[in-house]
Amino acid sequence: MGSEASERTAVGWAARDASGQLSPYTYTLRKTGPEDVVVKVLYCGVCHTDIHQVKNHLGRSNYPMVPGHEVVGEVEEVGAEVTKYRAGDVVGVGIIVGCCRQCHPCKSSNEQYCNKKIWTYNDVYIDGKPTHGGFSSAMVVDQKFVVKIPAGLAPEQAAPLLCAGVTVYSPLKQFGLTSPGLRAGILGLGGVGHIGVKIAKAMGHHVTVISSSARKRGEAMDHLGADAYLVSADADAMAAAVDTLDYVIDTVPVHHALEPYLALLKLDGKLVIMGVIAQPLSFLSPLLGISRKSITGSFVGSVEETEETLAFCVDKGLTSQIEVVKMEQVNQALERLERNDVRYRFVVDVAGSNLKVA
Amino acid sequence: MGSEASERTAVGWAARDASGQLSPYTYTLRKTGPEDVVVKVLYCGVCHTDIHQVKNHLGRSNYPMVPGHEVVGEVEEVGAEVTKYRAGDVVGVGIIVGCCRQCHPCKSSNEQYCNKKIWTYNDVYIDGKPTHGGFSSAMVVDQKFVVKIPAGLAPEQAAPLLCAGVTVYSPLKQFGLTSPGLRAGILGLGGVGHIGVKIAKAMGHHVTVISSSARKRGEAMDHLGADAYLVSADADAMAAAVDTLDYVIDTVPVHHALEPYLALLKLDGKLVIMGVIAQPLSFLSPLLGISRKSITGSFVGSVEETEETLAFCVDKGLTSQIEVVKMEQVNQALERLERNDVRYRFVVDVAGSNLKVA
Repeated sequence: MGSEASERTAVGWAARDASGQLSPYTYTLRKTGPEDVVVKVLYCGVCHTDIHQVKNHLGRSNYPMVPGHEVVGEVEEVGAEVTKYRAGDVVGVGIIVGCCRQCHPCKSSNEQYCNKKIWTYNDVYIDGKPTHGGFSSAMVVDQKFVVKIPAGLAPEQAAPLLCAGVTVYSPLKQFGLTSPGLRAGILGLGGVGHIGVKIAKAMGHHVTVISSSARKRGEAMDHLGADAYLVSADADAMAAAVDTLDYVIDTVPVHHALEPYLALLKLDGKLVIMGVIAQPLSFLSPLLGISRKSITGSFVGSVEETEETLAFCVDKGLTSQIEVVKMEQVNQALERLERNDVRYRFVVDVAGSNLKVA
Repeated sequence: MGSEASERTAVGWAARDASGQLSPYTYTLRKTGPEDVVVKVLYCGVCHTDIHQVKNHLGRSNYPMVPGHEVVGEVEEVGAEVTKYRAGDVVGVGIIVGCCRQCHPCKSSNEQYCNKKIWTYNDVYIDGKPTHGGFSSAMVVDQKFVVKIPAGLAPEQAAPLLCAGVTVYSPLKQFGLTSPGLRAGILGLGGVGHIGVKIAKAMGHHVTVISSSARKRGEAMDHLGADAYLVSADADAMAAAVDTLDYVIDTVPVHHALEPYLALLKLDGKLVIMGVIAQPLSFLSPLLGISRKSITGSFVGSVEETEETLAFCVDKGLTSQIEVVKMEQVNQALERLERNDVRYRFVVDVAGSNLKVA
């Protein structure tokens, strides 16, 4: 199978400069290699990282850039050596599309920690050409970085699980935080935070949402199913919650004090920092030692863990709360996401959009 | 057994004010309770914490204060309900002499993390009287906080293991860092650091000593048996060592940058901070996330782990490198310790000193 000699044309929406405005962009996909899967994109989630990339917040952006790394699509064609997938399969692609396959992380199924990983977009593939993401009609992806979307999961529902979902699932698994009955704190209620509440609840944890204001209390308790809601500005409530949590998933993407949240942790408690924050964070060393607490971090999850996350969500009937938009609304969606005006994840209906018209 | 109705007189060396100067001090020990062990002190190690306490660096010192929490002695008498010990046994006492016995840490053999723990000195016992430490002719201690010194371990050798030794052993055990073949970093070569090298080597780890200068290279490699020596000021050497260590035991007791040491860690590596440092420490969050690293802390170890540490050291033939002094030299020893002029732990020969004469 596979027309391995031909290149295809894709129509994506690309940023051209640090304004981050996306507009139609036609480009060529690589020839389908023996290990490649050609994916017709159906849906693609919008992650906060996409804003950093299209607006060059990290200073490493190359343009034109087609973003999108929560990609769900349908297999159109496969290379000669692809055995796991065939045309018609619904599949997903996450944040990376390549790795060295030689290093310790690669050999231990932690390829997301490979120093030579290739990002799904804004990177250079092994053929020397730029990688482009899922805000596009199609992608060609090495089968190693493709996951099967299980039956029972709507494709638009699956999209946020490929980054936000596994971003929460992976550290809970890796840090031994999957036992029922644990007491969880979810700090911040954005795209990752809302899935964090749902995954932690599905694991049987008692979940406290921690937020800077009372504004999201009803949402957290009534719609997302949190067990408790803690306003970080309420000193009495914070004092009463000291020494009660086994872990805190910290999704705050800007500089903040860690001491208030370290104080909430019990013996052996873990503060898992998800945000990529340019300013240094600080802490008082006795707060770690006196109760053997840890500050730690995690970066999405492996392909294997992504498949586990999908299976876990199907098994638990877990759905993410999304707002589906057409591609012509994507610039507005990025603006709204930047001011946290979304409950809780935008997903672009790529296949249902006319990609050629801005 | 046990003259439970009588009080005893002890002669210790006490600090009277924040000058930290110790001098003879006569005081009364409590009556021997049914669970109490009367210990005639033989040796007592000198820990850096003793300096903080006698000089009121933490602002919580009460005087007169008899310091010392690495205590080895001989049982003189036991209370009616003491079954584990009898007169003549050689025993040890560490950093705490009481706990609530009700909380989660107490019930899980982590009594050193009890919020109501009673410190061996500079604290108030359940009878309302001040606790005094091992720079004294004798102590009365609840059997729960007494450990047996195993045969084959000289009492002066055992002393530093009761705090410095278990301080390293406990986190290695708790954080799953006991497998042979791990690659260890020991940052700082003082009392805890030197025992850290020895314990890590005895566990079969490849040990790199990390120090600010080359001054201790010979000592670390030739006398302590380290496998490598890394000067933190040598940028090329530090760059070459990036991503090579499973853990770093950080014994630096003053403010320092953490990024250089986080960079040395591999995937899942742990930076274990031992110092009690008043100023906040800081780190860049991506350094944790990008390789799932942790910053963590630990506080001595449990009674159970102290016994394990002693057994481990006997089993491995591990000895600490100590300088034995008489009590009349203790003020000088504290001064030398403060300027890190000791290889590597002072131990006071308490029983061999004339405690009544300054």
